[in-house]
Amino acid sequence: MNEFEILEIINNKLSCNSYLGDDCAFLSDLDLFITQDTLVEDVHFSMYTTSAYLLGRKSVAVNLSDIAASLSIPKYITISLSLPSNVKNNFVEEFYRGVNDICTEYDVKVVGGDITGSDKIVISVCAIGKKNSNFLSSRKFAKKGDYVLTTGFHGSSSAGLYALSNFLYVDEELLAAHLNPVPRLRESSMLLNCLDCNIAVMDSSDGLIDALYKISLSSKHSIEVDINKVPVSDKLIHFSKINSLNYKEFVMWGGEDYELIVCVPENIYLKLDNNIFTCIGKVVNKDIFPCVYLKDGNSKFKINADTLINKSYNHFA
Amino acid sequence: MNEFEILEIINNKLSCNSYLGDDCAFLSDLDLFITQDTLVEDVHFSMYTTSAYLLGRKSVAVNLSDIAASLSIPKYITISLSLPSNVKNNFVEEFYRGVNDICTEYDVKVVGGDITGSDKIVISVCAIGKKNSNFLSSRKFAKKGDYVLTTGFHGSSSAGLYALSNFLYVDEELLAAHLNPVPRLRESSMLLNCLDCNIAVMDSSDGLIDALYKISLSSKHSIEVDINKVPVSDKLIHFSKINSLNYKEFVMWGGEDYELIVCVPENIYLKLDNNIFTCIGKVVNKDIFPCVYLKDGNSKFKINADTLINKSYNHFA
Repeated sequence: MNEFEILEIINNKLSCNSYLGDDCAFLSDLDLFITQDTLVEDVHFSMYTTSAYLLGRKSVAVNLSDIAASLSIPKYITISLSLPSNVKNNFVEEFYRGVNDICTEYDVKVVGGDITGSDKIVISVCAIGKKNSNFLSSRKFAKKGDYVLTTGFHGSSSAGLYALSNFLYVDEELLAAHLNPVPRLRESSMLLNCLDCNIAVMDSSDGLIDALYKISLSSKHSIEVDINKVPVSDKLIHFSKINSLNYKEFVMWGGEDYELIVCVPENIYLKLDNNIFTCIGKVVNKDIFPCVYLKDGNSKFKINADTLINKSYNHFA
Repeated sequence: MNEFEILEIINNKLSCNSYLGDDCAFLSDLDLFITQDTLVEDVHFSMYTTSAYLLGRKSVAVNLSDIAASLSIPKYITISLSLPSNVKNNFVEEFYRGVNDICTEYDVKVVGGDITGSDKIVISVCAIGKKNSNFLSSRKFAKKGDYVLTTGFHGSSSAGLYALSNFLYVDEELLAAHLNPVPRLRESSMLLNCLDCNIAVMDSSDGLIDALYKISLSSKHSIEVDINKVPVSDKLIHFSKINSLNYKEFVMWGGEDYELIVCVPENIYLKLDNNIFTCIGKVVNKDIFPCVYLKDGNSKFKINADTLINKSYNHFA
């Protein structure tokens, strides 16, 4: 079963649901956004390549990234920690030092959660954000003519992970992208200041192409992007070169960059700082079978669900 | 490390916290209550003794039980499900059928969550309740002279688990107590209708004595209860008798009954239905080293942290 099939089963079973398929759920009667993300040892991280401190930071960061995509202000988190009995003595202390540092940086309060036993470390964080504007973000709001923008670099995190997994020398910058990602809350707030309509935003937690495809599916519009316009780090190019790897594979399919992918009309694009938001393409036509067109020089590739399921990292594989 | 030591480490590390040590955290600026509980396969449940449907129900029920203890109205939940690749084909479908049924019964909406891979099934649910009264519940509110009340039967759930684990014949009622617990939301709402002050309420998820001790610790008052006044099911007595077990062990130390433990002044006690709320003791003196006094006929036992750590089920052992 892949992610799309599982979500379909869930949606069919739930009569009481309001799964929007966005990074956060919007609770309209409370003007709140809520999200929950889980990290599982040996699926999302390995204690051989990270520390309890960085894990604490990242567990919170990935949820704050969802809050950033919802254009709300993060307020509270709860943390559920499942631990094997053989974790290192100072694991809890170091983990919560990381949690405390990142929560202090973004003025977020830890209000609860639980701790329990398990075979592997499992961390589930729930984050709550407060609505901060008259406008909403949802994947479904992408419309014809929108500029497709992105923050930061793509591919750095998965290159960092590749290096760690294969014991390769790699620059600190790529390691940090993987082990200590920055939630794009400042960029989210810049975006918010320029809004005059609802827009499509999501984070690239599952990869750039995955994010673009999910926006296209949800908005029923195809999207065309130029892979050569996607901002990448020099360190990624260098790392790929010396290891004979194709850096575009990291850029397109690698996940966990936690950058924002944004679709906005021209007037909003013109108000934004081009050093922070890079235009990589446009939303094209409304489509019954929406897809992502990927330009690379003179070539153009069509990406749909099958491509994605084959290419993306599948946690259920 | 035991639960008390771990919580102390967390509280020392978090400068940004407001861990109240209650079943739910109260977000005063939003008038909301939030709670998160995680169930781990082979720690909290075994797929040899339950079904995906019942697991879906119970995962929600244990969180709604925390909401009941906070005297708020449950509104929304998010569910994070981690699944091994070898779960049965219809697991997701059956699990969400259970989730949907219990959410429909209590008018709760499922608004989000995620699904990911893992070695064992891990379910983490976050629930949000809306404040419904001018009065709050917290363990710390227990005061001298309060009546200690409880709903339902105690010991049934752990006897059900004991029977399942040891392949013993057992009545359906004890099995249901363990596999399909009922969150005491109706009882919570009855209680709310009688309030004229803040009171102490918690659920007995980790056992009756554990709950009483946590209230005594948090309120800095000792509590005296009569074990023979605790309501127990005839089925529990019968089951214990034919298997040469002491039923009081289940009543005192068995967990997962999800009954409410309530400390209220006399005037509130007198307004409550005695068929639903049973008085089992009283809050006695303020104490620097608060403890639970357990009366059993002419004997009286003093229970403190050491007794509890030795006796209670320790997930970290």
